Amino acid sequence: MTTRVAVAGASGYAGGELLRLLLQHPDVEIGALTAGSNAGERLGGLQPHLTPLADRVLEETSATTLQGHDVVFLALPHGQSGPIAAELGEDVLVVDCGADYRLQDAGEWERFYGGTHAGTWPYGLPELPGQRELLRGTRRVAVPGCYPTIATLSLAPAVQQGLVESDVVVVAASGTSGAGKAAKAHLLGSETMGNVSAYGVGGVHRHTPEITQNLSALTDEPVTVSFTPLLVPMPRGILATCSARVRDGVTTDDARAAYEKACADEPFLHLLPEGQWPQTKSVLGSNAVHLQVTVDETAGRLVAVGVVDNLAKGTAGAAVQCMNLALGLDETTGLSAVGLAP
Amino acid sequence: MTTRVAVAGASGYAGGELLRLLLQHPDVEIGALTAGSNAGERLGGLQPHLTPLADRVLEETSATTLQGHDVVFLALPHGQSGPIAAELGEDVLVVDCGADYRLQDAGEWERFYGGTHAGTWPYGLPELPGQRELLRGTRRVAVPGCYPTIATLSLAPAVQQGLVESDVVVVAASGTSGAGKAAKAHLLGSETMGNVSAYGVGGVHRHTPEITQNLSALTDEPVTVSFTPLLVPMPRGILATCSARVRDGVTTDDARAAYEKACADEPFLHLLPEGQWPQTKSVLGSNAVHLQVTVDETAGRLVAVGVVDNLAKGTAGAAVQCMNLALGLDETTGLSAVGLAP
Amino acid sequence: MTTRVAVAGASGYAGGELLRLLLQHPDVEIGALTAGSNAGERLGGLQPHLTPLADRVLEETSATTLQGHDVVFLALPHGQSGPIAAELGEDVLVVDCGADYRLQDAGEWERFYGGTHAGTWPYGLPELPGQRELLRGTRRVAVPGCYPTIATLSLAPAVQQGLVESDVVVVAASGTSGAGKAAKAHLLGSETMGNVSAYGVGGVHRHTPEITQNLSALTDEPVTVSFTPLLVPMPRGILATCSARVRDGVTTDDARAAYEKACADEPFLHLLPEGQWPQTKSVLGSNAVHLQVTVDETAGRLVAVGVVDNLAKGTAGAAVQCMNLALGLDETTGLSAVGLAP
Amino acid sequence: MTTRVAVAGASGYAGGELLRLLLQHPDVEIGALTAGSNAGERLGGLQPHLTPLADRVLEETSATTLQGHDVVFLALPHGQSGPIAAELGEDVLVVDCGADYRLQDAGEWERFYGGTHAGTWPYGLPELPGQRELLRGTRRVAVPGCYPTIATLSLAPAVQQGLVESDVVVVAASGTSGAGKAAKAHLLGSETMGNVSAYGVGGVHRHTPEITQNLSALTDEPVTVSFTPLLVPMPRGILATCSARVRDGVTTDDARAAYEKACADEPFLHLLPEGQWPQTKSVLGSNAVHLQVTVDETAGRLVAVGVVDNLAKGTAGAAVQCMNLALGLDETTGLSAVGLAP
Repeated sequence: MTTRVAVAGASGYAGGELLRLLLQHPDVEIGALTAGSNAGERLGGLQPHLTPLADRVLEETSATTLQGHDVVFLALPHGQSGPIAAELGEDVLVVDCGADYRLQDAGEWERFYGGTHAGTWPYGLPELPGQRELLRGTRRVAVPGCYPTIATLSLAPAVQQGLVESDVVVVAASGTSGAGKAAKAHLLGSETMGNVSAYGVGGVHRHTPEITQNLSALTDEPVTVSFTPLLVPMPRGILATCSARVRDGVTTDDARAAYEKACADEPFLHLLPEGQWPQTKSVLGSNAVHLQVTVDETAGRLVAVGVVDNLAKGTAGAAVQCMNLALGLDETTGLSAVGLAP
Repeated sequence: MTTRVAVAGASGYAGGELLRLLLQHPDVEIGALTAGSNAGERLGGLQPHLTPLADRVLEETSATTLQGHDVVFLALPHGQSGPIAAELGEDVLVVDCGADYRLQDAGEWERFYGGTHAGTWPYGLPELPGQRELLRGTRRVAVPGCYPTIATLSLAPAVQQGLVESDVVVVAASGTSGAGKAAKAHLLGSETMGNVSAYGVGGVHRHTPEITQNLSALTDEPVTVSFTPLLVPMPRGILATCSARVRDGVTTDDARAAYEKACADEPFLHLLPEGQWPQTKSVLGSNAVHLQVTVDETAGRLVAVGVVDNLAKGTAGAAVQCMNLALGLDETTGLSAVGLAP
Repeated sequence: MTTRVAVAGASGYAGGELLRLLLQHPDVEIGALTAGSNAGERLGGLQPHLTPLADRVLEETSATTLQGHDVVFLALPHGQSGPIAAELGEDVLVVDCGADYRLQDAGEWERFYGGTHAGTWPYGLPELPGQRELLRGTRRVAVPGCYPTIATLSLAPAVQQGLVESDVVVVAASGTSGAGKAAKAHLLGSETMGNVSAYGVGGVHRHTPEITQNLSALTDEPVTVSFTPLLVPMPRGILATCSARVRDGVTTDDARAAYEKACADEPFLHLLPEGQWPQTKSVLGSNAVHLQVTVDETAGRLVAVGVVDNLAKGTAGAAVQCMNLALGLDETTGLSAVGLAP
Repeated sequence: MTTRVAVAGASGYAGGELLRLLLQHPDVEIGALTAGSNAGERLGGLQPHLTPLADRVLEETSATTLQGHDVVFLALPHGQSGPIAAELGEDVLVVDCGADYRLQDAGEWERFYGGTHAGTWPYGLPELPGQRELLRGTRRVAVPGCYPTIATLSLAPAVQQGLVESDVVVVAASGTSGAGKAAKAHLLGSETMGNVSAYGVGGVHRHTPEITQNLSALTDEPVTVSFTPLLVPMPRGILATCSARVRDGVTTDDARAAYEKACADEPFLHLLPEGQWPQTKSVLGSNAVHLQVTVDETAGRLVAVGVVDNLAKGTAGAAVQCMNLALGLDETTGLSAVGLAP
């Protein structure tokens, strides 16, 4: 029986990527597509790459238009998912691509996002220990942020296996689509092409507490995270350079063994052979994550590098992966580990 | 029964794209992967985006390694397909992504490519009148060049319906992958980023006679083609701006009617709504072609704009489409009309 | 004695480029910097590349703030220059980088821009026959549009020397800065990177009548222009591919002779050696124009390719060049023929 | 009296940038231009942006062709400067843009570069304490590496003022020109556009010991440096994200005060106002360095971000700055603090 899905926020980047993936998914039928200010417009004018859906017209985002579907994906600005979700039945699978239900600590939510904390839903990163089980059969999923996805996956084996002390440093270079489709002068092509900039430096980026929350859950020791995001001249992809002080005696071989074990049964985690370092283009449009790790004995730090497509595995791909788990489908259905290159 | 396919030239861009598409094709099994100087290497080091094939090792390109497959794709430098094809059985489907068998006129071959003309195979552009029928059941296919694909599809309805006189002008902006993966200084990222250049100006580019051949077949009148290719700073995609003197009295409505008719039953041709002009990113990684046409009455020219992914529908996608036709599969199997954007 | 200059529209791309060039000019002192909605802001936050002016604060654009300068550069949206200019003294040199005073035909102005035609000022393309003389000592200059600059310079020698019949076709690939700094979703980096699009196709772009006006002035015969602008993924630069039906018997040698003659005494026109075709990066930030020409005898067309930096020689560089002429300075003062590459 | 300069390696990126800057320098005359495999070629074919030098022909790089100049710039592959320099007179100013004379420790040279250590020349970073004095009047200069330049300038105030403990982490995103102009497949535009990759991870990049050497000279305590370079899709520019464990009680105000003091009298160091973070495009083609610093009290790290044009202040601009000092000219002659943007 076909699953009927709706996408709220279908005119944005996360919504467009959800539709790209859902068009390839064998078990779903695409129902309502909704938007805010773009309601009433042809999808073909807003997302011309979705050729088969070009003549679809966007409806208003509301509980009414989203009713009557088995799955509702919410790709909305943060703070808007809560009210909608509250009106959708408990038997409807609601997959929130926004930040509303990611954090466990209401104080951190208020500090970084402002307003009241909506709550906490099962966190959609099945590769974390025990998380896959929580997602099976759930009817609510909080899809992780793009930076937390790759920072967490890049460091989880090292933290969990106790290879590193704390003092985590993450510098993550992201394509511009992570900043969304709203028109802002500093995101114009004229500004972003040929340009790298740092932003949200010094622990003020909203993804900081989410990274800390994820890594802290893997160890009994306190974790500190220095996180710096960079905007780089490409539309998609994140490369995270993650390091932490290595414990005495831990070698590159130890690190590779831990990462091999962590990736062994994971369909989307891929540890590259020694000496080959990740590049974002390898995972463009794909749900794969490529990882590499080494120990710099002179500097005393373990360095892990991971790449992810911020819109695919970093958002919409994770959403589909979690939908598969929640619905009892094969986790990889409709998802690919093949990137688009060159 | 699964079809067993081999790819010769698997380390190059066309070969990589063939593999990307074949990995999504439900009816094929990927057999031998061969290369020239890269033989003996892991595919994962050369095409890291093909994650599921990362551990495959490339064999030498030869009739021996390519034997025993139902389908052999040749993605080789021009002039190298002939000798290989001659050794493959007549019951093997050979799909040549090179130029060797595209031209009908041996004189033109010698003038533009040098050396002896290998011959002429059924031309793999099923959207041309009568061509689809020639491709059904064939065991030899000459996949069109990327520029001829989009120039031909952009102008075919106008030429065939007699809306234009001759004097065709094509200016086609292409991403850099069309120039291949061989290391050349003028193709370095440092040279190509932030840069547009013209090359092969004045009718000397090798795709010129192929465009002329295609358009000439659609009309009884002589066709002249002024073709200028541009190299633009993106890896993939071609946008062709094509114009010709319009016959007296022909209007934009006439032109749109002709193009609508031409696209109506074609799975991969998509005429955009009036006022929406094509962009390359809409067809990235897809087999779709987006078209638009208008008549500039002041200048007296019909102007058609078309976009294609040079590696997908412009090469590897067309190859798979033709394989489907030749094998009696649904023509669209394993191919998508959805692009990767943003 | 130092010339005191003001720049209206200092927060935009043309204004920023004017300031970049004026900072290098030995004979000027930079006075008032004005803006619309950005008035009151630090220039360093808006144009961080203008390090020496970082602490300057923008004033409101008005005749009052612009008074008391020897030269006023207007880099404003079209339609806004007229009212300001009317209030500035006749002894003040006013250099308008907008479109208001470029067209001679009021009907064409109304058709393409709407509203009332402000008038016609001396056209700031000194390389056109007789134009340099008109600019010497003038107190009003209409700086040409970026596309008209390069289309005109690319074809002027062929049209003026009678090498071509009419039926001009211009396809010009432009970087995104030509579209300005106002935030629009289709100009986001996520949309423009990796993407080529056509726009204003079929003779509707506002620069069409300006190109026609320029070329028509060089010949007694009627000129038709089919103009298609393309948006390509780079911040700056235009490459124009220009062709026209060649008169019988005209050869590449004839064409090169005409272009050599046209470039011979021009400080900023540079005909490349035979076989070398222009690329935009060669003129990045410079006032130089690189040209090349050939005759395609098979197609029967003369093809000329020219490149210009749309913000430099295409706007702000031309403005400074015209200021030099108007003030009796050496025409090249403060301008460079050296590009920034790679 | 005009200074006569020669450039060895004029066909490469560093050589091209030297010539771009020297063409703007009022006190020099450009003499011999030499190259390796490109000797005998027209410069215009190799560096078409250097319009005024287009007809210059490259000579062979040798002591003979370089003789008879007041200044010789060496922009050669590492290991090639030593033999040439040995043959040039002691009264000739030799400015080496290569790595040969940068390191003080022969063991580190051998470990990272192999071969015999050529020696140590005055290090061309005048912004370091005491360094300007060493460069005045010298006849030998070792121009710093591009990464060490920005990593050092970004952290020097913090290290020197004792604001941080050791445990330095540097992640530096660089444009592709840093990898040079030799044709390599992984540097093709098709590979680098839309792509970020990490390389030389884990302390193996050759610039690592140079960064350590520079920072160690500023403090009595041992300094460890974890350095990761990233290749990002732009031709030029480096943004370095540098952090170190901050000493207890040190605040952002303390850090800004130290950086303000360090930048106060430096013509090319520019601390941005609080809240504004550096972007590479602001310093494109310029000799300026933009810096910003903050203290992340939660993570316990001081984070400094700096940008530089790797070819300008990162190589050729520093070379000209040092030439000015060595010759007794104003240090800023011929150099600009204005970037090219957008």
